Amino acid sequence: MLDYTHVDGLSAADIERLRALYEPLTGSVRDLIDATIRTEVDADAVALAKAEIESATARLRAHQCDGAFGIQYATNGDSMPWGNAVIGVRNPTAPPLVIHKEPDGSARSDFYLGAAFEGPPGHVHGGVSAKILDHVLGDAASKPGVHRLTGTITVRYRRLTPLGKLHSEARVTHTDGFKTYAVGHIADATGITVEAEAVFIEPRWARG
Amino acid sequence: MLDYTHVDGLSAADIERLRALYEPLTGSVRDLIDATIRTEVDADAVALAKAEIESATARLRAHQCDGAFGIQYATNGDSMPWGNAVIGVRNPTAPPLVIHKEPDGSARSDFYLGAAFEGPPGHVHGGVSAKILDHVLGDAASKPGVHRLTGTITVRYRRLTPLGKLHSEARVTHTDGFKTYAVGHIADATGITVEAEAVFIEPRWARG
Repeated sequence: MLDYTHVDGLSAADIERLRALYEPLTGSVRDLIDATIRTEVDADAVALAKAEIESATARLRAHQCDGAFGIQYATNGDSMPWGNAVIGVRNPTAPPLVIHKEPDGSARSDFYLGAAFEGPPGHVHGGVSAKILDHVLGDAASKPGVHRLTGTITVRYRRLTPLGKLHSEARVTHTDGFKTYAVGHIADATGITVEAEAVFIEPRWARG
Repeated sequence: MLDYTHVDGLSAADIERLRALYEPLTGSVRDLIDATIRTEVDADAVALAKAEIESATARLRAHQCDGAFGIQYATNGDSMPWGNAVIGVRNPTAPPLVIHKEPDGSARSDFYLGAAFEGPPGHVHGGVSAKILDHVLGDAASKPGVHRLTGTITVRYRRLTPLGKLHSEARVTHTDGFKTYAVGHIADATGITVEAEAVFIEPRWARG
């Protein structure tokens, strides 16, 4: 069973302060990731950069949480999934996606994928598309306080997805007991590149 | 069509030198990513770390390739998919997976997933499992010089995958013309957590 009920007693102001402190740091690390992949500088420059990176890491590790970030909750019930691999505002490997829930229950996100997300040259890794669709469909299938986990997802690749500005959206098609079915896609400026369908399950321990 | 035929005229010694230069840098950035997610240091320490990170990024960007890394080829035909989101030795967001092809054609990898790959608290993001399976099944379905792309993949989640040491393997089940079918899974120490099946397609332009 997951520790979804952890409460840290943080106020809304605490959360705002923590986000303002750590989100720009995470953005700097995202920029460094891109530079690390694309750099062609010589050994001397690499050595200087590496020393600075290791110094920064030591500073950050002076006080850190045990294990992974988890999901922290504020006293008002707001969740902080800040370490999440897709949406985490404190996870430099997340694009991160900002997913909007529409009044009709659908989930939508506009995002940008650069060099860190490459598979075929100049294009998004097929596995990255699957990762994003898993999350966007899961958001469409979930409601506040109802945590649904992916049961099965099928991803169909219509054509290669170019790196750059992309869009994803998903919606629930129907429910059947504890199963929620959703469909969605990723699109570039000219149309859909990848589509997915999935069934999400509300874990037995999470049923009210 | 993809630029899979790009040749940079690099010798085996050049590749060895480039790898020895940039792989440790990438490892340092991976460590920084983990520290960035888990840190609880105060604003002064964050400011100092952020300044060092931005200095390192500026050094690395002084000379860099246009766009994403792509796949570079050596004169001996060896490929360098070093920017790849799953296996790229120069991509700090890749675990990276080291995938071994067995004599029977199956693909196997032992790897470690830490805080950067989290979804449910303490567990691997379902989308990350899908991303890894897409690559491992794709490797099982591919041969040197034959680039196969994912057509459709279905991923079934048996149970949550804990962060930590994991294993993945895949094998081809059958072929049908330009279609290659593969199955595989991810397992922790106690057994299979996620399984997948997929069909891979050899693009028309890549058929000999």
